[in-house]
Amino acid sequence: MQRYQILSQNEIGQIHETSLRIMEEVGVIFSYAPAREILAKGGAKVDGQRVYFPKAMVEREIKKAPSSFTLYARNPEKNVLINTQKTAYVGPYGSPFVMDMDNGRRLAKLEDFINICKLEHKMDNIDIMSHIPCEPQDVDVEVRSLEMVYQTLKHSDKPLMATVLGYEMTKRNLEMAAIVFGGLEVIKEKPVAVGIPCTLTPLSYDDKMAGAIIAYAEYRQPQLVNSLCIAGATTPVTVAGTVALQNAEVLAGIVLAQLVSEGTPIIYSASSSNAEMSNGSLAIGTPEDAVFSLINGQLAKFYNLPCRISGALSDSKCADAQAAYESMLTLSMAQMAGGNFILHSAGIIDTYNTISLEKMMFDDEIIGMIRRIDQGVVVNEETLAFDVTKEVGPQGQFLTHVHTFNHFRKEFYRPILSDRNNPTQWEAEGSLTAEKRANARWKKLLEEYAEPVLDKDVDAALRKYKDK
Amino acid sequence: MQRYQILSQNEIGQIHETSLRIMEEVGVIFSYAPAREILAKGGAKVDGQRVYFPKAMVEREIKKAPSSFTLYARNPEKNVLINTQKTAYVGPYGSPFVMDMDNGRRLAKLEDFINICKLEHKMDNIDIMSHIPCEPQDVDVEVRSLEMVYQTLKHSDKPLMATVLGYEMTKRNLEMAAIVFGGLEVIKEKPVAVGIPCTLTPLSYDDKMAGAIIAYAEYRQPQLVNSLCIAGATTPVTVAGTVALQNAEVLAGIVLAQLVSEGTPIIYSASSSNAEMSNGSLAIGTPEDAVFSLINGQLAKFYNLPCRISGALSDSKCADAQAAYESMLTLSMAQMAGGNFILHSAGIIDTYNTISLEKMMFDDEIIGMIRRIDQGVVVNEETLAFDVTKEVGPQGQFLTHVHTFNHFRKEFYRPILSDRNNPTQWEAEGSLTAEKRANARWKKLLEEYAEPVLDKDVDAALRKYKDK
Repeated sequence: MQRYQILSQNEIGQIHETSLRIMEEVGVIFSYAPAREILAKGGAKVDGQRVYFPKAMVEREIKKAPSSFTLYARNPEKNVLINTQKTAYVGPYGSPFVMDMDNGRRLAKLEDFINICKLEHKMDNIDIMSHIPCEPQDVDVEVRSLEMVYQTLKHSDKPLMATVLGYEMTKRNLEMAAIVFGGLEVIKEKPVAVGIPCTLTPLSYDDKMAGAIIAYAEYRQPQLVNSLCIAGATTPVTVAGTVALQNAEVLAGIVLAQLVSEGTPIIYSASSSNAEMSNGSLAIGTPEDAVFSLINGQLAKFYNLPCRISGALSDSKCADAQAAYESMLTLSMAQMAGGNFILHSAGIIDTYNTISLEKMMFDDEIIGMIRRIDQGVVVNEETLAFDVTKEVGPQGQFLTHVHTFNHFRKEFYRPILSDRNNPTQWEAEGSLTAEKRANARWKKLLEEYAEPVLDKDVDAALRKYKDK
Repeated sequence: MQRYQILSQNEIGQIHETSLRIMEEVGVIFSYAPAREILAKGGAKVDGQRVYFPKAMVEREIKKAPSSFTLYARNPEKNVLINTQKTAYVGPYGSPFVMDMDNGRRLAKLEDFINICKLEHKMDNIDIMSHIPCEPQDVDVEVRSLEMVYQTLKHSDKPLMATVLGYEMTKRNLEMAAIVFGGLEVIKEKPVAVGIPCTLTPLSYDDKMAGAIIAYAEYRQPQLVNSLCIAGATTPVTVAGTVALQNAEVLAGIVLAQLVSEGTPIIYSASSSNAEMSNGSLAIGTPEDAVFSLINGQLAKFYNLPCRISGALSDSKCADAQAAYESMLTLSMAQMAGGNFILHSAGIIDTYNTISLEKMMFDDEIIGMIRRIDQGVVVNEETLAFDVTKEVGPQGQFLTHVHTFNHFRKEFYRPILSDRNNPTQWEAEGSLTAEKRANARWKKLLEEYAEPVLDKDVDAALRKYKDK
């Protein structure tokens, strides 16, 4: 299998070189003093808040990040190997609003958060729980991230993500998660929680994110050092110019993490997209977003790092056809890009602002379809089936042949939402659109949900930690 | 740019070899005696209706098909270069039913046919008119194909397709089309109409299709020799086995065409998909369909021939989210496969049986998005924009920079259906789903439609020919 490459290796090299020039000659602002101290000690030139990165220092540090690691789950069967080849699908992240066909769009509450956790847990195509699929606005913001880590651990035994709200709170998140796994020293060897510290584009990091990078690195938990540029607003309008700047930001964060703790796991992460020029705001369900994903995949492979790409993105305001085609575009191009950690894999509409429960169900199907493509095709004597063809011959039929029976389950993806009935059957079943079937499906998944067992003492310890 | 390759070249070679074995050892049924005579004269072994193709004969003949040709339109600005690099998008083909949100699903009439012609003509993303977007059931079947060629020529100045209903009727179609272009001798040099003769899977050709192959070749019009296998029903259930058989059928047709007229233009064409195993019927909006497309793209490139792939396919019974995500999957994978002639590019739902006018509008947008990806990314000093980044610096903004103004139109795709407003604006505009906006859009396109001028004498000659 040969991946799609929208740019040549020479063009990727030009982007890399431009990023290094930006880091060395333009610099990156770090408002957080401890970060500047670490970078200065590592060889950076610091002038006020601005940090200039010598080329040799960057190239030395980025080589220290591993290209493969395992993310541990409280159910060992759900451990996830993260490397430059495999693809893990991760829940949505960070929406203030939730929406469904019954109750419309509203600010998310803890009840919504828990329901989305349950759905993510039930969806076979979701490998990793996001930290914050929606922001539960009825939970005090001071303790919200701890509450979310607790509820995620309680409602799922898949691996999880944690907060990036500064050095102290990030450490508290990770310490709490460690309780389930036998303590901090255990998780330093066997990482359990992923964070996504983000740049403040263009070319800066705020206190909280720089603090989070240091915290994740100190506790050896994997981090996606992420840049979300808005081409034409926060970065140059050209794709190449945006990627060069974005890459400079991401590399700056990776260098910081490696200086804190050499070899700490990193996922190369970028989620840039274009501005909608009529209003200057971000748009994400766009072909430009897909183009950025394709380039980001190549860049991550250039650095031999696992790659985070966003999928299932949409600017639609409801779970409609636009949501569906934008989601399929961004998810399929995330796969084409060779993404290894696909964040926002289910539910996003309204340019990251809303999670639609119906769209979570569309995306579950879409991931399944894409995984079938990723599974590839086996070519050998048995699958080429010359003897079967010879036996059946011209104008024969293969439906009842034993070869068909032996292979169809492996060869064919079985849909979970899509309808393949004829129109008469479809009408007899109520002429249900995909949206209506999706509405029925998330309710069914919630009904079927069973909470994975969490040891009572561990549960008590978690509660004690978060409420202290 | 490096295309995605789901199979290695070695695996493509194995498929090719298996196809040649099938052609040589299993054979292909041709019920049409003139076809058997031509094939026998070319070196095939004929036993009853079954034709066995020596390997050397196949490899000799398929090399004779050109890898590039121009398809001429009555408006020279709309000529289409067909080669192994570029992509042309072609209308839908062959649905008995038509559907829209106002009038529901019904058997197609001539009025529907004309409306779809007008929409195809208006859609910038459609490069070639299909012959039969829907079957106008109120036109006598004996004269239907001529009526469709006439109406297509009258309502659009883009290139077109024509019938495959046997040797005689195919010739009449092409002779009528030739009237517009100065006669048969002209179009033999400058082809104007594409046909799609199809195999009767597995491993046979009926009289009409074999006759059509000969007619297209005699008049030197391009043809898509096509195989639509249903994996698990008409061919082996394994992808590799289906492709090997499908390829044997397609090569048999190409050999016939080249024996009739060496160098006659051919588009390698295949549209196999999987059976829905619960009922044994064809399913097309599937990941397996996309996998077949990816392999077919590689096979066509192996033979150095332009490649027809299907896109915009769906099994949904209405213009809903399923229709949208299936369509995006099949169209984007057609592009990833390097398809050069994407048939069914707009409107198909219900497994080829229905054209939805709203879905035509979804697909217009989807093609536009995919074309943006295909356009690629320019990487040079101007687009890398180091100087712009240096000038703006950390925490600056790029929205008002002249570089942004100079480049945004080229870098960004401008949507024609997708909504990128915020929720407040979207609600103020009526909370319209993509389906409702699509409904308004096809009506607007029909209102705006203006018939391209057709010389009165030519029109009269066409009418005389079709009614004789």
